[in-house]
Amino acid sequence: MTDVEIGRGKSGRRAYSLGEIGIVPARRTRDPEEVSITWQIDAYRFGMPLMACPMDSVVSPATAIAIGRLGGLAVLDLEGLWTRYEDPEPLLAEVTELDEQAATRRLQAMYAEPISEDLIGRRIAEIAGAGVTTAASLSPQRTARYAKAVLDAGLDIFVIRGTTVSAEHVSGRAEPLNLKQFIYELDVPVVVGGCATYTAALHLMRTGAAGVLVGFGGGSGHTTVAVLGVAVPMATAIADVAAARRDYLDESGGRYVHVIADGSMTSSGDIAKALAIGADAVMVGSPLARASEAPGRGYHWGHEANHTELPRGARVRVGTIGTLEQILHGPSTVPDGSMNLMGALRRTMATAGYSDLKEFQRVEVVVADSGLPRAQR
Amino acid sequence: MTDVEIGRGKSGRRAYSLGEIGIVPARRTRDPEEVSITWQIDAYRFGMPLMACPMDSVVSPATAIAIGRLGGLAVLDLEGLWTRYEDPEPLLAEVTELDEQAATRRLQAMYAEPISEDLIGRRIAEIAGAGVTTAASLSPQRTARYAKAVLDAGLDIFVIRGTTVSAEHVSGRAEPLNLKQFIYELDVPVVVGGCATYTAALHLMRTGAAGVLVGFGGGSGHTTVAVLGVAVPMATAIADVAAARRDYLDESGGRYVHVIADGSMTSSGDIAKALAIGADAVMVGSPLARASEAPGRGYHWGHEANHTELPRGARVRVGTIGTLEQILHGPSTVPDGSMNLMGALRRTMATAGYSDLKEFQRVEVVVADSGLPRAQR
Amino acid sequence: MTDVEIGRGKSGRRAYSLGEIGIVPARRTRDPEEVSITWQIDAYRFGMPLMACPMDSVVSPATAIAIGRLGGLAVLDLEGLWTRYEDPEPLLAEVTELDEQAATRRLQAMYAEPISEDLIGRRIAEIAGAGVTTAASLSPQRTARYAKAVLDAGLDIFVIRGTTVSAEHVSGRAEPLNLKQFIYELDVPVVVGGCATYTAALHLMRTGAAGVLVGFGGGSGHTTVAVLGVAVPMATAIADVAAARRDYLDESGGRYVHVIADGSMTSSGDIAKALAIGADAVMVGSPLARASEAPGRGYHWGHEANHTELPRGARVRVGTIGTLEQILHGPSTVPDGSMNLMGALRRTMATAGYSDLKEFQRVEVVVADSGLPRAQR
Amino acid sequence: MTDVEIGRGKSGRRAYSLGEIGIVPARRTRDPEEVSITWQIDAYRFGMPLMACPMDSVVSPATAIAIGRLGGLAVLDLEGLWTRYEDPEPLLAEVTELDEQAATRRLQAMYAEPISEDLIGRRIAEIAGAGVTTAASLSPQRTARYAKAVLDAGLDIFVIRGTTVSAEHVSGRAEPLNLKQFIYELDVPVVVGGCATYTAALHLMRTGAAGVLVGFGGGSGHTTVAVLGVAVPMATAIADVAAARRDYLDESGGRYVHVIADGSMTSSGDIAKALAIGADAVMVGSPLARASEAPGRGYHWGHEANHTELPRGARVRVGTIGTLEQILHGPSTVPDGSMNLMGALRRTMATAGYSDLKEFQRVEVVVADSGLPRAQR
Repeated sequence: MTDVEIGRGKSGRRAYSLGEIGIVPARRTRDPEEVSITWQIDAYRFGMPLMACPMDSVVSPATAIAIGRLGGLAVLDLEGLWTRYEDPEPLLAEVTELDEQAATRRLQAMYAEPISEDLIGRRIAEIAGAGVTTAASLSPQRTARYAKAVLDAGLDIFVIRGTTVSAEHVSGRAEPLNLKQFIYELDVPVVVGGCATYTAALHLMRTGAAGVLVGFGGGSGHTTVAVLGVAVPMATAIADVAAARRDYLDESGGRYVHVIADGSMTSSGDIAKALAIGADAVMVGSPLARASEAPGRGYHWGHEANHTELPRGARVRVGTIGTLEQILHGPSTVPDGSMNLMGALRRTMATAGYSDLKEFQRVEVVVADSGLPRAQR
Repeated sequence: MTDVEIGRGKSGRRAYSLGEIGIVPARRTRDPEEVSITWQIDAYRFGMPLMACPMDSVVSPATAIAIGRLGGLAVLDLEGLWTRYEDPEPLLAEVTELDEQAATRRLQAMYAEPISEDLIGRRIAEIAGAGVTTAASLSPQRTARYAKAVLDAGLDIFVIRGTTVSAEHVSGRAEPLNLKQFIYELDVPVVVGGCATYTAALHLMRTGAAGVLVGFGGGSGHTTVAVLGVAVPMATAIADVAAARRDYLDESGGRYVHVIADGSMTSSGDIAKALAIGADAVMVGSPLARASEAPGRGYHWGHEANHTELPRGARVRVGTIGTLEQILHGPSTVPDGSMNLMGALRRTMATAGYSDLKEFQRVEVVVADSGLPRAQR
Repeated sequence: MTDVEIGRGKSGRRAYSLGEIGIVPARRTRDPEEVSITWQIDAYRFGMPLMACPMDSVVSPATAIAIGRLGGLAVLDLEGLWTRYEDPEPLLAEVTELDEQAATRRLQAMYAEPISEDLIGRRIAEIAGAGVTTAASLSPQRTARYAKAVLDAGLDIFVIRGTTVSAEHVSGRAEPLNLKQFIYELDVPVVVGGCATYTAALHLMRTGAAGVLVGFGGGSGHTTVAVLGVAVPMATAIADVAAARRDYLDESGGRYVHVIADGSMTSSGDIAKALAIGADAVMVGSPLARASEAPGRGYHWGHEANHTELPRGARVRVGTIGTLEQILHGPSTVPDGSMNLMGALRRTMATAGYSDLKEFQRVEVVVADSGLPRAQR
Repeated sequence: MTDVEIGRGKSGRRAYSLGEIGIVPARRTRDPEEVSITWQIDAYRFGMPLMACPMDSVVSPATAIAIGRLGGLAVLDLEGLWTRYEDPEPLLAEVTELDEQAATRRLQAMYAEPISEDLIGRRIAEIAGAGVTTAASLSPQRTARYAKAVLDAGLDIFVIRGTTVSAEHVSGRAEPLNLKQFIYELDVPVVVGGCATYTAALHLMRTGAAGVLVGFGGGSGHTTVAVLGVAVPMATAIADVAAARRDYLDESGGRYVHVIADGSMTSSGDIAKALAIGADAVMVGSPLARASEAPGRGYHWGHEANHTELPRGARVRVGTIGTLEQILHGPSTVPDGSMNLMGALRRTMATAGYSDLKEFQRVEVVVADSGLPRAQR
């Protein structure tokens, strides 16, 4: 570990972002067609290692189905508009009309509406009815309260997601969620996070989770570092948690917990880098918010944006560039890494000579400071 | 210490700014309500570890009272407009009308008016009359001359503040302030600075000061590095002075001198980082200059801006975003770390699992170069 | 090798771009007239160490002849417009009319036209007819198919060029090109690439190539890092491949394989740096696309820009600044390193005291992070 | 020395610019009035350690006199307009009228006029007539030819200045200047440069020079790194040459050769940093080109800008901010380090506790990467 002395009284580790990383093709090359990008977690198998972020601008029941059919796994936010409103479409449309100043206040108001357990059940059923794998998320604070409604609806994969989720939460007000016991008693696989360090991830793995989310839940518009000062650049976070996966595999006698990079990826190049550094899959938001089917209609925001007292994210304009299919599988008509995300991943792996994702985690990388073009960082 | 060779004839230490630091949540999490952010210096106890900078754009008698009631400690600049003019309000209003070119010259003229000892007494009495803790500042050059007027007024906490304050000032013109003797003879606690190194801080601690200010007095508009070439990035300065606190605690057999980060913090994230690296409290200007009550009316400037011969700061437009209460305690309606500064601090500590400020100084941090988003540095 | 730990599970080498490098004059100086910049590869001798990139915006039969007469070596792209259309001039003119949005789509369509073997032969003959050395390029995927047509036309230097070319390509669909056998059976010298590492280059050298291209084929508008995540900053890539040249020289008992830096150079300063770090010659595109004779008419694009499913480059406006002669040999009327590329190289070598290119590879350099002016990086 | 491996085949030293340096006040403070900034080279004593660059936009006979009277030493460019034209004022006025495109071409034409030996003599006499110390410069190429005219005019300090000047120039055309013999035979002290490394400086010192210029002659608009790839960031260059001064002092049994930082300083902070790192004096251009008396009338250019075949500098607009006296001695009415350069230097030294320039070379400094505010780098 590369510790630097900040001053006499404090040291810190040097940490790296995906923008500082370059993948190095250093051996044989392959045809892209020879490459497999399938991903399996627990009993569920997917055509691509990609989850869609539980954000209202990205995942609605309709896009969850569409993404599932295209080979990915979309996670519905059970604390979003779809479980608070019978018909959130007018609200989603309204968000696009707000000016910069008013956006945060209006989002705070929209999300003040109570969550309906009935709607939780119906939304999950709607997705399941289409025959795709269902996944949905709750924050740790609300998991205990709504878990029964979720499970009754027959969810396939349970996601517990917050800015920072720890295996041991301390609270004087209420009995906090006992993650280990909760997961133990559950029949469905649980993906949990965010976390960003070896130790935090190892503790989450020990709760029995099938996967851990790496990152602090940031979408394109998140401002966690400005508001909280909390930041662990993504490349370092992934590499650390991947090491926890390896050590936990040994410790547990063979449980392989999936490492899912969550946020900080805006192009196909970033996705390839996250996998190259050790992630098993990625969870992305803004790249999918640019789809013509996206409920955000060219705008993008996450949970951070509507916190009642301390919003930590902005509604950002991302634009609309093509269909979900084009964004995931091409063909691309733009040269900036925003379309054909999975075609690009295949080509990166082919160029570097790897035929599956697990092997690709061993690819050589360089760290470049001002080495990479500014425009592309 | 990480010394780098600049060239064969000179080496220097690698130093870090707050913008290069990220706080790492790495253990349990807590409810924000479980977190204490109270701060005590000498006999004075505060609801938050925050001092307001002695700058005319931030602290008037009225805002000193307001900030005190909200739990903080405001420091009135005794060499500012409030001790030079019976009614400075018209001048404060005039500053907002100046164009960029004229601002420095007009400020130079406004601050050429003599300081009135009578006004010193009346301003302090005005604040004390409201029942809040009083604090006010003088530069080292004028401390001897005006100290009696200040003490007669019954000030609680005496602040001696300059760009750089040393324990041993050399002057051929006049008897310089003997800090050690001055503080020894005083009945009130003294906070003194700026300083930015272990050695300078240790010498200031030995004068008997209750707290030392870390930094070179820079507000948002300061240009010390351009004018003087003097610069010690804040993260390194805090970590160094925190080490001096620890060593002086031992040397003195138990005197705990408070380390107060002064300047270079523009968001709640920066405040959290300063405390994470070892500060006991922060002294901020521009974040409070954005309050609707702020005397600067959306503009901000410090002493540096009105030096007769060598101005080292600019009047900058910071805008008005909400009330002092909103800025300090929320609720926030913006996602950029400019509102609910103390709510954000609680959440950072909760996220990282710490329950009081002293413990929080041990939180893990990373150093990221281009790792942190540009927009937020 | 300077490996940095990205996180516990992954390390990577620190890599440097040309923008971080400065050449250091540290001994005697010379007259520029005393300097030789001639370059010889195989039996071909050139007045300058410069190849023109096989890009339709740079090399047409006419500019290939012009560049040859000025002392350089232009490479015609045999998969470009000149082998797909009897008269590509109207198409080249049309590209300049496209708006940013439409450019990629239209390029995709233009390059969908089939390649004509007849045109391959005629284009090469056209250049050869002018008496200059002929060079032309194919991608590895199409080399086997069109090689006969190329050789029948009597090409002097064969270039096999792709984003990444490896000595051992794996394909399940078709028999991949066996580079070693192909080169062995060929009578003409082969230049092959891109590659960016010691190992990849060493394997290419072992195929019998006369020269290897360093880089990933990027022109000014390439976006490989955004789309694929693949990036090796050029200074490090050149230094690595130069080491492979030295080791292969020993291993082969005396075969000197030329190292040709391909792309990432936009000014005469960049060209000098590439040679200073170990390149024998450079292959440039955008600097020549600015010539009044350039077929791109002030626009510039590479193969990456027209990929059917995954474009990885943009058509960029580079403008027109002078004749090919002025750009290569001056006189320059602009101070930005875009004109008199070879006069500048002579002067750099003279300033640093070197009289030929092979010696100049030993010149001292510095690595500067934010040291070099931003505008010039 | 901190060598970094660029790649397997090449290493380079990590070098630092002034923008990466911060001066650290770490001991006692002083009154600015207690500080001496006088400078003596050979028999000439000056009120400040500042030379004005031989650039037509800065030094005319009139400003040479004015700068001399203000305590500095201005160097007249003997290859500039003042020795080519009886009355260059109309040409100087014309430069301000040129647009960006035309500037370089017109400068090339203006400077094509032959140099008059008669004018050399008269310009020097004009300055000497005012009673100030005279200094003037020639390039190494023209030194032999015009030296007699210069010496006959009774010049006090001879400056030989080029982008890179070495002790041993190699030329096949003509007998190059033998610096050592030339200086030996001269009665006046010689200042010679630029150079940027320990070795090059040591060789220049051995020629008998009284001072060496550190840097590559760059004014604000120079583009040496873009055109030639040549660059040694200034902080490293000064520290290296200062080490050569120390070693040569020992080797020579006591000859102290002055180290004069030439270029790359745009603010008073930069000047303080250059001296802090080891320079004995600075040579500045653009800061003085902003004077109302400056012959450039708000524009600035150097020799690099008018090279016939390879211009390596641009005419840049710097604006006019005040009189020479204000710029050098204040009072300042702007907070950006562009006025009261010497007042600022005094204050920096006072703040850091040093009373003369030689001692100040020992001041502590930090190296900050992104630590220093961007706007001020």
